[in-house]
Amino acid sequence: MKSHLKLKIKTNGLIVLCLFSAFLFPAAGLAGSDPLPSWNGGAAKQRILGFVKNVTDKQSKSYVVPEERIATFDNDGTLWSEQPLYFQFAFALDRVKEMAPEHPEWNAQPPFKTVLEGDMKSVLAGGEKGIFEILTATHTGMTTAEFDQQVKTWIAVAKHPRFNKLYTDCIFVPMLELINYLKASGFKTWIVSGGSIGFMRPWTEDVYGIPPEQVVGSRFETKLEMKGQTPVLMRQPKLEFIDDKEGKPVGIHQHIGRRPIAAFGNSDGDLQMLQWAAAGGGDRLMLYVHHTDEIREWAYDRNSSIGRLDKGLDESAANGWVVVDMKKDWNRIYKFEP
Amino acid sequence: MKSHLKLKIKTNGLIVLCLFSAFLFPAAGLAGSDPLPSWNGGAAKQRILGFVKNVTDKQSKSYVVPEERIATFDNDGTLWSEQPLYFQFAFALDRVKEMAPEHPEWNAQPPFKTVLEGDMKSVLAGGEKGIFEILTATHTGMTTAEFDQQVKTWIAVAKHPRFNKLYTDCIFVPMLELINYLKASGFKTWIVSGGSIGFMRPWTEDVYGIPPEQVVGSRFETKLEMKGQTPVLMRQPKLEFIDDKEGKPVGIHQHIGRRPIAAFGNSDGDLQMLQWAAAGGGDRLMLYVHHTDEIREWAYDRNSSIGRLDKGLDESAANGWVVVDMKKDWNRIYKFEP
Repeated sequence: MKSHLKLKIKTNGLIVLCLFSAFLFPAAGLAGSDPLPSWNGGAAKQRILGFVKNVTDKQSKSYVVPEERIATFDNDGTLWSEQPLYFQFAFALDRVKEMAPEHPEWNAQPPFKTVLEGDMKSVLAGGEKGIFEILTATHTGMTTAEFDQQVKTWIAVAKHPRFNKLYTDCIFVPMLELINYLKASGFKTWIVSGGSIGFMRPWTEDVYGIPPEQVVGSRFETKLEMKGQTPVLMRQPKLEFIDDKEGKPVGIHQHIGRRPIAAFGNSDGDLQMLQWAAAGGGDRLMLYVHHTDEIREWAYDRNSSIGRLDKGLDESAANGWVVVDMKKDWNRIYKFEP
Repeated sequence: MKSHLKLKIKTNGLIVLCLFSAFLFPAAGLAGSDPLPSWNGGAAKQRILGFVKNVTDKQSKSYVVPEERIATFDNDGTLWSEQPLYFQFAFALDRVKEMAPEHPEWNAQPPFKTVLEGDMKSVLAGGEKGIFEILTATHTGMTTAEFDQQVKTWIAVAKHPRFNKLYTDCIFVPMLELINYLKASGFKTWIVSGGSIGFMRPWTEDVYGIPPEQVVGSRFETKLEMKGQTPVLMRQPKLEFIDDKEGKPVGIHQHIGRRPIAAFGNSDGDLQMLQWAAAGGGDRLMLYVHHTDEIREWAYDRNSSIGRLDKGLDESAANGWVVVDMKKDWNRIYKFEP
């Protein structure tokens, strides 16, 4: 009996030791295996690995306590594609078509008329005003729970027109590896996106492992109302916060209240977020994803209307930030690649 | 050598086993020990223990996955005292006195004049307008980092006038036990307070173990500006969000994006938060702290100008929410009690 118990404790002890080590020393647990297999072994990958080693090594002068290991990721163009148009806008266009039977007036009323006629050129030519009208019509006027459900329903089935794959299959495998690597290294990972917080939260936990409370985005106002005896939050047709450019550090401060030590973006809309991260003391990682692969994904930068990366490239060069060349640095972009 | 190693593994195994159990089975780890020793064994304590058992027991029909175990706590009057006036306002008054030498005009200008003369009756009689002027003067016009530091400096030394103890010593021991018990049971604990988010965040992690990113509060607007080459967030004299009453579910939705399954308050300002938690499905815990102990703390409710609890008492009675009678339910309030 006694030796039996001893054996059991020994065996448990060993298993537990392994599990426990994996918990306490995640980076060490990865030793020997590559945490970033979709990244080719260039400078970008080395910079990431070096940074994580420095801030997690207690002996390093760059050591950062786990509570302060905040990493912020833009979403569109950084964690998933954003061409030929922002996926959230694809959702809005599909919603216009679904809602059209209840809105016969839309048949005569731009921009809804042009959406229903499939004339995307005119829709986009309508500029911000038209886009805002489409967003307001499709993103407000319902409860937060109803909107959640509309997003969930759409994201479960809608397909990207080029790849005929779910939009959530159009996320970047190397970036998901990076999120997981940072999480395993004690980081709290956040999305800080110009996109709508309400559009992202229903699926980011399943897709990226990032829970709704770690998502920062642009916001329509919500207001508490009573539906009979039940309180509901109604989405109002008023954009109360734009989480882009100068708004990103504001959104980070509102939601996190700490300065990120690592920030990841792909466009000039992320520049202030990277500058905000860079302005803290100590070792920092600022990284731009540069869309350079027109075969596997898209190639665009300084002159693109979507995801323009112009000042960001200059700032990266001037400050020695990491610029990921998707074509060269990533051996895989999407999980559906052969 | 071999037996040495064996012994080492065995010993490590046992230690690790204990540590690991404490991590994986925190509730079980507490079995036999009382997680709420400052709570007398009345109905309130039993309701809390029963609720936590139900939502954490996988066999229970009320089981809730850890990700959804969200608990929200009001701060003033719920986690610490709020008499004879909100501690944040005590900070503001002290700041007025500190800032006065740079503002000679204040000597002739109410409400600053009355503050500097120590005429608190007139300050409070000045109503919301005067209070807002004092808050604006002391809470805005500086960078977020400067304000953080001002709060940290004050909270480290300022003493409560009645007890001559640090304000952070005036937190309620039973509520700290409750926070720790919920955390150990897989809950994520949040502060959702009418107080300023900027005033709370600098110390909530040290005092309650609640990190800045889990604090929701009222907010002054912030704006990104450049100080030379350095981006800073300047606190603007515009209150952009009031996290009180109808604002609390809005703040919860903004920051958390999930509905709490447990909500704790002490005043009518928390009523909508408790209603919002209650309106979700499944087992829920709504709890009011009722200030009934004029000897050890204060006794006030329906007619108090600070922390009025009137509708909340009626709603609690109607809905069977827990009402904590501080005098009867808590055998200890502050840690400095003999």
